[in-house]
Amino acid sequence: MKKIEGGVTAAQGFEAAGVAAGIKYKDRNDMALVYSTSPCKAAATFTTNVVKAAPVLWDKAVVDNSDYLQAVIINAGIANACTGKEGYDYCKQTADATAAAFGIPADSVAVASTGVIGMQLPIDRIVNGIGLLKDAKGDDLEHGHIAARSIMTTDTKPKEIAYEFTVGGKKAVIGGMCKGSGMIHPNMCTMLCFITTDVSISKELLTLALKEDVVDTFNMISVDGDTSTNDTVLLLANGQAGNAKIDAPGADYDAFCEALHGVMVGLSKMIAGDGEGCTCLFEVTVKNADTKEHARTLAKSVITSSLTKAMIFGHDANSGRIMCAMGYSGVNFDPERVDIYFESSAGRVQVIKDGMYAVYSEEEATKILSQEYVTAVCDMKNGSETATAWGCDLTYDYVKINGDYRS
Amino acid sequence: MKKIEGGVTAAQGFEAAGVAAGIKYKDRNDMALVYSTSPCKAAATFTTNVVKAAPVLWDKAVVDNSDYLQAVIINAGIANACTGKEGYDYCKQTADATAAAFGIPADSVAVASTGVIGMQLPIDRIVNGIGLLKDAKGDDLEHGHIAARSIMTTDTKPKEIAYEFTVGGKKAVIGGMCKGSGMIHPNMCTMLCFITTDVSISKELLTLALKEDVVDTFNMISVDGDTSTNDTVLLLANGQAGNAKIDAPGADYDAFCEALHGVMVGLSKMIAGDGEGCTCLFEVTVKNADTKEHARTLAKSVITSSLTKAMIFGHDANSGRIMCAMGYSGVNFDPERVDIYFESSAGRVQVIKDGMYAVYSEEEATKILSQEYVTAVCDMKNGSETATAWGCDLTYDYVKINGDYRS
Repeated sequence: MKKIEGGVTAAQGFEAAGVAAGIKYKDRNDMALVYSTSPCKAAATFTTNVVKAAPVLWDKAVVDNSDYLQAVIINAGIANACTGKEGYDYCKQTADATAAAFGIPADSVAVASTGVIGMQLPIDRIVNGIGLLKDAKGDDLEHGHIAARSIMTTDTKPKEIAYEFTVGGKKAVIGGMCKGSGMIHPNMCTMLCFITTDVSISKELLTLALKEDVVDTFNMISVDGDTSTNDTVLLLANGQAGNAKIDAPGADYDAFCEALHGVMVGLSKMIAGDGEGCTCLFEVTVKNADTKEHARTLAKSVITSSLTKAMIFGHDANSGRIMCAMGYSGVNFDPERVDIYFESSAGRVQVIKDGMYAVYSEEEATKILSQEYVTAVCDMKNGSETATAWGCDLTYDYVKINGDYRS
Repeated sequence: MKKIEGGVTAAQGFEAAGVAAGIKYKDRNDMALVYSTSPCKAAATFTTNVVKAAPVLWDKAVVDNSDYLQAVIINAGIANACTGKEGYDYCKQTADATAAAFGIPADSVAVASTGVIGMQLPIDRIVNGIGLLKDAKGDDLEHGHIAARSIMTTDTKPKEIAYEFTVGGKKAVIGGMCKGSGMIHPNMCTMLCFITTDVSISKELLTLALKEDVVDTFNMISVDGDTSTNDTVLLLANGQAGNAKIDAPGADYDAFCEALHGVMVGLSKMIAGDGEGCTCLFEVTVKNADTKEHARTLAKSVITSSLTKAMIFGHDANSGRIMCAMGYSGVNFDPERVDIYFESSAGRVQVIKDGMYAVYSEEEATKILSQEYVTAVCDMKNGSETATAWGCDLTYDYVKINGDYRS
């Protein structure tokens, strides 16, 4: 497979748009559309939060019950969470208006929102925005880029990625965009991700591929440990690549999974590296653990710890904090076996050997930790399983972004 | 029972001292002693972290295996964690030197450390400090106060509390000191607590009382979610009150438990309210939950959330973050039943009603949230169980304290 330019419009038959609908922001786009010229098989994963935003409830219903999806309407500014029946009705009205505008069934329309919670959507502006999106849409890379910018909140950059790959002798493409780790007038850290592909695949395998990959990608990132009410990953496949439909495991399915993983891991790292206020993408690889699940739990515990995050901000090889964060993760291990290394473009240094501080140059360690992409490798010497998690440093700006008053 | 002045020397027969032993700090005390003139029954709880500091391993052994404890030696500056066999040997040497100096068995000596991890103790200075402590000790309140100051790290104030109560017709006293939520040249947030009482009680009931109370006190506080390698609560009872020994449940045991709870909850709130960099003690009470355990889990999830902590710092009634933090706690509940109120010395306001934003004055809410002690009450309307947790706000200073380089 090969990385290519683009995002949600990279695959054949997908269009996108972004417009300024006046939802909450001034002078910027705040609504986006992802549209397929033909019906798509769909798979999705959603927040595990008990408090689910209305669009999450709507999307779960259409992904579970509809044979096909064809359009996604996204707004930034208002999360439509904690909004009760009124909020859910606005999802339905959004889908109805989209159905009427595009001549498609209402149950083929997904909706997604990010922003302030507790506030109701201005449904008239949403409906008006749908008309604007229809007029503005296009299938080139620039339209995908406009959509990726329109769903940003406190993100500092748009997040897009695409891969080309071969399946059943046909060229296929998968691409995606996401927003995340941003807030709108500090409220809720929400991750929204939309992935499009022209592969022909059964709904069952599309769902399986998504569910199996999300545990090692989006579920392995953390900015602040707060799981949003709105988190959504939506994957659409319209079959326009013309490959023989993938409806059983095998080489074609594996090729698709590899490309999907490329997109998911790429977007995951973009979200972690653009965490609120952050200056550094912090990667933690736990290797030689006894089980895969333990490796994941250990890596996530380190990435989530406020103290390790502050340590990265301080460029301080205070590696006892990593030992500590693994120690309270709930996983049992022998601390006196653990080795820890820091790696970055500036080099590699061992800081913990057999559970005790190694002898190393603090100056060298500080240099390694002062880069924009830093990896800690924790060798448990207790098996052969590996997992990687991604996060970022904890900075003054994180506190500023989230401590400032909403309005 | 009645709150009285004092700390670890409030109860009869307890002495304390603090001295400058030159462990790591300059120009301040950094070693402390708690000593009983007669042997004590002892109970303790320790960190659940898999990575346990050497003093935790030592203390667990002596509390489990010795009939009596009589002295505790504490140092600030170096945590003696991730120090291997050498670190454990220093615990033994500390106990041996204390035993020789005071004429007591080595297995009646507990040790405790807080500070930088990975560094070995300067054992010669520790041994020298034991001699200084012996000469400096005294049984008045001022000596307790000196000890409480000597164990501080980045704590901004010493933490002491004492209660007088009646048991079996005799006047008894329980008092304690702790340090916590501080770091030494940013390293590890450690909570150390030492409680002394002159009550006569069996080891079994002393242990039971401590274990049952810790779940609703020290286990319900969080500054940054990082469980230290060194956390220790040590409870000593020397029996000098002269009451008939408490060796069965009943009124005497209940009176003791009530006084113990007063000390434990008081010290817990002092730790939370002196969290690193914090400006506010943030209390969360979850009421009318279906089970006690669920109430505890919900309250702790709110207190631990970076987003609710930043909200308190910003004096912003952004109550969706509280809904969100309860939602990802792992406890199942109906969001559309939840009511949330903010309370402080400035008043009370309902911010969530049946899971949606209530109508209230933002100005009034900001005033309530601008006090030094703020409570959020979450009414689940789903049962009759209550739990309270304590934390603090997330501030620039937290990042500064923990992001600055160690030396």
